[in-house]
Amino acid sequence: MSSDLGEWLAGSGPDSDIVMSTRIRLARNVIRYPFLSRIEDEEKSKLERFLRRELELASIGEVSYQNLDEASQLDRDCLVERHLISRDHASGRGDRGVALEPEGTLSVMVNEEDHLRIQVLRSGFQPSAAWRHILGVDQALESRLDYAFSPDFGYLTACPSNVGTGMRVSVMLHLPALVITKKLKKVFNAVSKINLAVRGFYGEGTHSQGDFYQISNQITLGRSEDEILTSISDYVPSIVEFERNMRKRLLGESRRAIEDRVWRAFGLLGQARLISSEETMDYLSAVRMGVNLGLIEALTIAEVNEMFLHTQPAHLQKHCGRELDSAERDASRADYLRERFAKL
Amino acid sequence: MSSDLGEWLAGSGPDSDIVMSTRIRLARNVIRYPFLSRIEDEEKSKLERFLRRELELASIGEVSYQNLDEASQLDRDCLVERHLISRDHASGRGDRGVALEPEGTLSVMVNEEDHLRIQVLRSGFQPSAAWRHILGVDQALESRLDYAFSPDFGYLTACPSNVGTGMRVSVMLHLPALVITKKLKKVFNAVSKINLAVRGFYGEGTHSQGDFYQISNQITLGRSEDEILTSISDYVPSIVEFERNMRKRLLGESRRAIEDRVWRAFGLLGQARLISSEETMDYLSAVRMGVNLGLIEALTIAEVNEMFLHTQPAHLQKHCGRELDSAERDASRADYLRERFAKL
Repeated sequence: MSSDLGEWLAGSGPDSDIVMSTRIRLARNVIRYPFLSRIEDEEKSKLERFLRRELELASIGEVSYQNLDEASQLDRDCLVERHLISRDHASGRGDRGVALEPEGTLSVMVNEEDHLRIQVLRSGFQPSAAWRHILGVDQALESRLDYAFSPDFGYLTACPSNVGTGMRVSVMLHLPALVITKKLKKVFNAVSKINLAVRGFYGEGTHSQGDFYQISNQITLGRSEDEILTSISDYVPSIVEFERNMRKRLLGESRRAIEDRVWRAFGLLGQARLISSEETMDYLSAVRMGVNLGLIEALTIAEVNEMFLHTQPAHLQKHCGRELDSAERDASRADYLRERFAKL
Repeated sequence: MSSDLGEWLAGSGPDSDIVMSTRIRLARNVIRYPFLSRIEDEEKSKLERFLRRELELASIGEVSYQNLDEASQLDRDCLVERHLISRDHASGRGDRGVALEPEGTLSVMVNEEDHLRIQVLRSGFQPSAAWRHILGVDQALESRLDYAFSPDFGYLTACPSNVGTGMRVSVMLHLPALVITKKLKKVFNAVSKINLAVRGFYGEGTHSQGDFYQISNQITLGRSEDEILTSISDYVPSIVEFERNMRKRLLGESRRAIEDRVWRAFGLLGQARLISSEETMDYLSAVRMGVNLGLIEALTIAEVNEMFLHTQPAHLQKHCGRELDSAERDASRADYLRERFAKL
């Protein structure tokens, strides 16, 4: 499974000790078709075929298209776990799909909430590179498609919260030291003052798992793309510094306690016979910090990220080649982890 | 340290998968001296010298006598951790002592609550053997000493609760499966109906640690020694069977969950960098059950028992050769365990 892990899980980008990934998505709709909340099934299918063809013809790089209505639940869930489609897109109905670049950097959802949701996902903190990439894709599509656009409002979207730029920039941060030192609230208060939002590991409405937090812009209207990018680019490095300083302070003031947390997690992951997804995320989070702090040398960040992904329910079932109930997953997850840790 | 571990920790006695040890103690006082609650310091010292000499001259086996007022706090605490003297005897004041047989099977406390507290401690479930041993010691002493004895009441003791036989039989049981299956209350209710008491790992007033429970007789008056022994000998095997059946049932019905508990404990003991005495007892308890169930093959019961003992505060400090505060002990305990587990 590791060969198709995707660029963003490699842990190779800038600041990847703390920034897991940078994501930009653009919401776009085309004229002559109603928004998806008002579309008839037949027209929705027609729209999908149209957009699919346009995606295949546009100069947006090597992408392969997948109709999600024809895909299995498990395959759809795997795409969610890789952050390539949304949960809503996976559980939706009717003709819809996704165009994927092999590395997982670019994905374009068709018939999600909007006709098109273009996404670029990059390892570490790379807002500018992600922006250049997605801008190229957007322009290539715009040269072929008539986007629904108003000179007054900007890009028109199904939900008013996306009108304007239709852009959301999200940065996934790994903040275990801020969690341990109880400084997160301070960060979140500051974040909300500059109109940034904080979410859990799988976006809107999800809880934090494994000390991962997504920071993203709230406002899409009345601000330019550059202003949105600047607010993220200005603010995220200060959170990264804060987390780094807290890690240093923890190592200085309570090295034993940090080592204890990291190695207990290591011991549990290597020995448990039943382990939930949530517990796994929490322990892998501690191990990830341990690798970054140089406490654990037997593992790389890419390997830890891979374990994060492979222990998610859908990937686990894919790995076993069959559907598993929750108890079977907990056993199978423990077996997978034990096998990985036994080699260390 | 392992060479002087003592017979009772070897884990070699009958039913030692569940019965850690069988202990009998007799409370005795001699005439011509007041009870210790009413004695003057000078007379107490005289009494100690007198009893020490008698213990050295009596035919009670090879014993060495130690005055506890001259011993260090650490040495006294080590004796408590080995269950050779009581906490009260360790923390008492004035001339008092203990006669010890090298194997730790026999100990005789001088000037504890009573003039003499004779104790025999045996591995596993051995009430008859312990009784034969202590009876021999008691008779050897009685042939030299004038015990305070009333034809109406029997042996007279400082506290009325010991009058009569002055005998307490205690069996230390390891009952993790009854704890997991929440059956303990049932056992304890039954136990109290037949006038047996349940206590924690270090006797009266202490909490259970590591799923260890002491069952002992409540009543010393109006019952013969044989009757007391019979009540224990009749009842303990049914608790042992109950625990064994629950272990079997757990293995049958939720093998994964039991393996998980056992191996998580194994993983934590092998990787923690800070660990309290209580946590250690709990995890060693799970590991002990794992060894007995054949889930863990890399360890013997004697080794687990040894770790129980060596991770207690006083033994730990003895091992390090200096006094340690609580945080230092938690670190040093983790280091000791990690070293032991690294060899497995």
